[in-house]
Amino acid sequence: MIKTDILIIGAGPVGLFTVFEAGLVQLRCHLVDALPQPGGQLSEIYPKKPIYDIPGYPSILAQELVDNLMEQIAPFKPGFTLGERAESIARLEDGSFLLTTSRGTEINAPVIAIAGGLGCFEPRKPPISNLSQFEDKGVDYIIRDPEAYRNKRVVVAGGGDSALDWTIYLADVAEEVTLIHRRKEFRAAPDSVEKAFQLAESGRIRLLTDSQAIGLKGNGKLTDVVIKHKTEGELVQATDHFIPLFGLSPKLGPIADWGLNISKNAIEVDTLDYSTNVPGIYAIGDINTYEGKLKLILCGFHEATLMVQSAYKRINPEKKLSFKYTTVNGVNGF
Amino acid sequence: MIKTDILIIGAGPVGLFTVFEAGLVQLRCHLVDALPQPGGQLSEIYPKKPIYDIPGYPSILAQELVDNLMEQIAPFKPGFTLGERAESIARLEDGSFLLTTSRGTEINAPVIAIAGGLGCFEPRKPPISNLSQFEDKGVDYIIRDPEAYRNKRVVVAGGGDSALDWTIYLADVAEEVTLIHRRKEFRAAPDSVEKAFQLAESGRIRLLTDSQAIGLKGNGKLTDVVIKHKTEGELVQATDHFIPLFGLSPKLGPIADWGLNISKNAIEVDTLDYSTNVPGIYAIGDINTYEGKLKLILCGFHEATLMVQSAYKRINPEKKLSFKYTTVNGVNGF
Ligand SMILES: Cc1cc2nc3c(=O)[nH]c(=O)nc-3n(C[C@H](O)[C@H](O)[C@H](O)COP(=O)(O)OP(=O)(O)OC[C@H]3O[C@@H](n4cnc5c(N)ncnc54)[C@H](O)[C@@H]3O)c2cc1C
Ligand SMILES: Cc1cc2nc3c(=O)[nH]c(=O)nc-3n(C[C@H](O)[C@H](O)[C@H](O)COP(=O)(O)OP(=O)(O)OC[C@H]3O[C@@H](n4cnc5c(N)ncnc54)[C@H](O)[C@@H]3O)c2cc1C
Repeated sequence: MIKTDILIIGAGPVGLFTVFEAGLVQLRCHLVDALPQPGGQLSEIYPKKPIYDIPGYPSILAQELVDNLMEQIAPFKPGFTLGERAESIARLEDGSFLLTTSRGTEINAPVIAIAGGLGCFEPRKPPISNLSQFEDKGVDYIIRDPEAYRNKRVVVAGGGDSALDWTIYLADVAEEVTLIHRRKEFRAAPDSVEKAFQLAESGRIRLLTDSQAIGLKGNGKLTDVVIKHKTEGELVQATDHFIPLFGLSPKLGPIADWGLNISKNAIEVDTLDYSTNVPGIYAIGDINTYEGKLKLILCGFHEATLMVQSAYKRINPEKKLSFKYTTVNGVNGF
Repeated sequence: MIKTDILIIGAGPVGLFTVFEAGLVQLRCHLVDALPQPGGQLSEIYPKKPIYDIPGYPSILAQELVDNLMEQIAPFKPGFTLGERAESIARLEDGSFLLTTSRGTEINAPVIAIAGGLGCFEPRKPPISNLSQFEDKGVDYIIRDPEAYRNKRVVVAGGGDSALDWTIYLADVAEEVTLIHRRKEFRAAPDSVEKAFQLAESGRIRLLTDSQAIGLKGNGKLTDVVIKHKTEGELVQATDHFIPLFGLSPKLGPIADWGLNISKNAIEVDTLDYSTNVPGIYAIGDINTYEGKLKLILCGFHEATLMVQSAYKRINPEKKLSFKYTTVNGVNGF
């Protein structure tokens, strides 16, 4: 069993920064995230896009912000349990919480900070009856490591930035790339659309619009995708991988069952310290709601900072916390 | 008369960032600051010191943060009235405010955001009866441009970082530097103290501890400082400049007389939108107070952001503000 001072659910920017503020007051943190990497929406949805409203950064790439936060919290040596979903919580006799993850990992802490953003990301899946049969056997919803596709044949499906960007990228890596999209028009950066059409014209990828994947074939491992064109009928495309990139849709998931007051898919909090209706559980960042709430990263940073003050008092009811500037006191890691 | 959407009093980090958030919703800003440069405490008190708790910056020099904020807000072309103190406000018939500065500049706006930090900085002055006679005639409380002291004789007084840092700096610039300090011990970075003692030993500066300036001599321009040693009596030191660096002490100043609810030298606000008791006037950053308030830069950024939403509704009661991410919408300057 892992023991910590503040158990943080969600390793997005807000969960990460919480480690820093907690560290300043000598509290240790452990983070749990369902995704295999820290960074939340920034790393999962838009790592290479610039954010313009992080104070002090006229522009910063989302992944760069995550990397900087990881560097900023490093002195406080946070623990990470990644690729596991926070599933259930129980209250122990001493008032502390015991969290169990989807893989059975147990974490014990007197305080829980839920920084779960929009919830757990789950890929939107195309309606193909035997899809789940080929998951991890040729069907991938997320590209973790593009090198896995080197010299392989891949079929990408989707009409957004993610589908186009990866198609363009894989054109240089895979042996053969087919992009299929239900409509004629793409909903993506004009540059990317143009690039994809150029690649198709020069024969470096195959582009099928007005087309949909309707079936998968294989024996243990995927061998073919059955594609249906709007007017021209069916076609069977031999492939090693089928990668439907229809986006990830976040689901509040198990957090909804923890007895917290929820409204509009978010956890209600008291803005005094971002505490929930369950004493000892706080909610910060995109996952909370209050009058005037803005789902912005910079707001989550503030919420995390005030929340840590309250958590400190909870954990150390007898101690007085004296407020010190980092400039004056420095950062004294663990 | 200057006209703007949001008149910001105080060009510290929080006032500066307000320009950015206002710009995102197409509101224009004008800033007034009593200091000759933007940046507030960061530029005035600790420009060269690192801050460690700006989210996304493991470390950033205070002045660097100010420079970055200036770059971030540049697209929104803020107006600046620097070196003038916001003195009085009147309410016009149309409900807007008319602010008059210490130099008579008039600025008109429907919304005022007070980001006045700890108030106006005023130098702490040593108790020398004829001190004011020599102000700007040899007596300086702030070093604006060290080049002004090249090949001059200077007497610095004080025992803190500012006095030591400038003494060390001026040792290379001035013809002759004397540092006088009331006590034996300095309250400054050990490095700087050591450096100053080394300079004294090698004869590059004159260091007088247990000493105090008690009189000034001159005829229109300063010529001498009278220094009294605790046990060894008086000494007259010929000099071109006397620079007492006893720190700046901020005073709430005229803001205290604007009919705002004040407690503990700060303006009470509603955390919903950081509005004060006077409709149309908001207070953000170090100058406001509410339960759980932390005087941190990152908190001021959040406050500025929520405040701007409320200001927008006030200025455009008929319009609906749709919330957009900068990553998606970009930054569209004026
Ligand atoms: C395209 C796009 C552009 C954006 N642009 C901007 C912008 O310009 N400026 C801005 O301020 N914001 C922007 N945002 C919003 C910003 O990304 C969010 O405000 C931010 O990510 C919220 O951070 P967070 O840490 O609260 O949550 P998230 O980043 O959502 O992270 C939450 C994490 O919690 C995990 N999680 C949830 N439930 C569980 C569970 N039960 N068990 C384990 N893990 C769980 C999730 O896997 C996720 O990693 C943008 C968002 C998008 C999608
Ligand atoms: C040595 C030191 C170290 C610090 N370290 C940190 C740190 O590590 N992290 C952190 O978050 N914070 C730190 N702080 C605090 C931080 O500097 C403040 O929180 C921050 O400056 C507040 O910003 P602000 O914009 O609200 O106000 P300020 O920076 O105080 O700026 C207010 C401005 O308003 C002007 N003003 C006031 N009244 C008037 C008037 N009537 N007319 C015209 N102008 C007026 C002032 O001249 C000033 O320029 C530190 C402070 C000090 C002194």
